[in-house]
Parts: sequence; C-alpha cells; structure tokens
Amino acid sequence: MNELKTDRSRLRRAHERGAYDRESLHAVLDAMPLGHISYVIDGKPSQLPTLQWRRGEYIYWHGSSASRALRAMEGKDVCLSVTMMDAYVLGRSAMHHSANFRSAMVFGVAEKVTDEAAKAASLKAMVDHILPGRWDHLRPMQDQELKATAVMRMPLAEASAKVRAGGPKDDEPDYDLPIWAGVVPMQTVLRAAVPDDRNLAGLEVPDHLSRIRIG
Amino acid sequence: MNELKTDRSRLRRAHERGAYDRESLHAVLDAMPLGHISYVIDGKPSQLPTLQWRRGEYIYWHGSSASRALRAMEGKDVCLSVTMMDAYVLGRSAMHHSANFRSAMVFGVAEKVTDEAAKAASLKAMVDHILPGRWDHLRPMQDQELKATAVMRMPLAEASAKVRAGGPKDDEPDYDLPIWAGVVPMQTVLRAAVPDDRNLAGLEVPDHLSRIRIG
Repeated sequence: MNELKTDRSRLRRAHERGAYDRESLHAVLDAMPLGHISYVIDGKPSQLPTLQWRRGEYIYWHGSSASRALRAMEGKDVCLSVTMMDAYVLGRSAMHHSANFRSAMVFGVAEKVTDEAAKAASLKAMVDHILPGRWDHLRPMQDQELKATAVMRMPLAEASAKVRAGGPKDDEPDYDLPIWAGVVPMQTVLRAAVPDDRNLAGLEVPDHLSRIRIG
Repeated sequence: MNELKTDRSRLRRAHERGAYDRESLHAVLDAMPLGHISYVIDGKPSQLPTLQWRRGEYIYWHGSSASRALRAMEGKDVCLSVTMMDAYVLGRSAMHHSANFRSAMVFGVAEKVTDEAAKAASLKAMVDHILPGRWDHLRPMQDQELKATAVMRMPLAEASAKVRAGGPKDDEPDYDLPIWAGVVPMQTVLRAAVPDDRNLAGLEVPDHLSRIRIG
C-alpha cells in the first residue's frame, strides 16, 4: 500500500525509484499527453488536467486565451505531473500491495508564448506529437484561432521521472504463506477509429491514424 | 484543441460539461483509483499522484506516516482530481480537436484520520474497493503497519464532475471539406494476472482477481 512517492522533497535526494536521466524523463512525458498542473490561486492550490507536449527541453500546454487558470499561472510557479499506472502489485499482506507506474514531475515557472510564429509552431508541434501526420490534412489554422489560443511552457530544469516495476516485495516470513501474489498489469489502449456522422461520403480512415501511440 | 476545463472558477458556474449530481461524481471517482493531489508547500504548488478511494461522501488517500507530502497537507487546503481520457476527438481543423474525458475535482481541507479503528477500517475499505474480495485472503494487518501508515480524507463538499463525450463540433463551413473527422477511443484495460515467482507451488489464480475493475 505504498503511495506513489513524488513529493518535492524526494526529487532532491537519491531514491531507488528515481530516474534523473533525460531519456527516462522524456520517455514518460512523451508516452502520455494527459498531465495535471498544480497552481496557486488566491493562496489556494488548484489543478488543471490538460494535454501536454514536449519540444526539446521544454514542456508545453495550451488553452483558451480567456482561461482563468492559464492567466493565474502566467509567471508563477507551477508543478506538472504525468502518471501512468502499469499494474496493481498484489502482495501477501495489505502493507505490501503497491502499484507499478511511470511518472514524471516538473517544477517551474509558467511562461506564456507570446511570439505569434513561435505559438503557431508550438501548436503544430502539439498535433504532430499527439496525432502524427494529421496537421497537413487539416483546414489551415486561422489568425483568429491563433489569437484565441494561449500557449504556455516551462523548461525541464527541475524535473525527474520515477518508475516502479516488478512484483511485490513481501516480508520474508510471508513468502511461506499460501497466498497468491503477483501483478495485474494494466494498459491504456486505442480502439478502432469511429467516423463522424457528417463525414463526406467515401472518405476512408486516413493512414496517419495508425501512427497514433499512447502509453 | 480545447483544454480540459476544470479550473476552480468553472466549478462555480453552469457549464455544458459540468455534472453536479452526486451520481456522476461518485462514478468518476469510483472508476479510477489514480488521482493527483495539489497542495502548497513553502508557498509553492506541489503535487502527489496517489491512489484514492471513496467512502460515502468522503474521499480518502494514504501513505507513509513519515511522508513529507502528507504532513504538508494536514489541515491545509488541497485539490484532488481524477481524470480519464476516453477518446481523441479529431475535427476538421486543429482548433476543433479535443478529447473526450471524465473528470472529477474535489477542493477541501485534508484531515488526518487519527482514530486507529477508523484508520484500519479505511484501509480495509481501500482494498475492498480497488481489489474486491482480497482483504480476507491476506496475512492480517499488524499494529506496526497501521502505525506506519497515514490515512487522509476530505469531504466531497466542494466537488464536481465533468464529462465530454461525442464527436467533434466543427465550424459549419468545414463540414463540406473532404477531411476525415471522428474519434479515436481509448481505454484502460487490465491484462491477465502474472504470478509472483515465489508463490507456493500449486496456488491457483484466486477468483477475486476477476472482480477487479478499472476505467
């Protein structure tokens, strides 16, 4: 029954589950677009679940230009995390139940991308990252759409990944008990694409959909 | 490319995606044990990905009694969210791409469960909720394990659920374009249980594992 330990104090010291190399960090962030961003508003913690994407050593997210959450974050400390559960870990005692997971946590100051060309490039990068090959099939982005959209980013400076994998670690005497232990793996999977009712007749499912990956 | 809108301001006004009934809220919280808790430490936002479980009108989480995160939360404002992505929504323009999701957000003050009997009952409830039927198969919980574990809770008082479902909502002229639109569903699934290498010979996968649900 261990918690998924990713509080800030733990980022600053060695930890058996910690992975401070860039490759591990990038792998977690790139595998799952869903992230959660913590921020402070009126002195209280709040949270924004949002899609995130990485470009080099920056993490990006976006929303409406009118978003109160994004405006509250601008220039302020935020904390973004991405977590994937990979298995329930079932030990021989409740205490040694756990979860296998991959997680990343990034602390930093949220910066608004104000340059219009950089903003447009960031949004294209988002689509290219989450739905590779799709951007070029779309009706081009309009100026008013770009204006209506805010793009935020922060550097991957104070960031780490954590991974737990493998089976339960039980108390030694408990291994003699006739209790089934092991893992129940879980996975996020994509299902077959469902066309919109208003698609023009004869449109086939485009090849680029087969390039979408998650988890 | 809409954000998943769940900032605090939006909880306080009517919203087409908002679901303020208890049934919707309970359904989201009960479907996905993985939650993210935002809290403030040294004036800065931090975050704890953790397993959560519901009992009536309270949400619970737990960790080590020595957890700096849990100690930082006690008696303080926190914000817990649970988010499941159900599909990528692919419109005819980048602007009208979105995600189908179910999410819940709970604001409140984190309270430590100090009564030992209540704490033990909460931990049993956690196992019963996430792994129904497993508790009775386990080596019983020991006093020192209970002491080493902190259980936190908060009421589902300031809480709401949000759901987006269905296809893209494109600009009316864009429906005439020969662009494939639709949804790519996604789902969290459980795989076949994998036994621990040190299980006693002859132990079969117990029936209660078939009762685990997620998503």
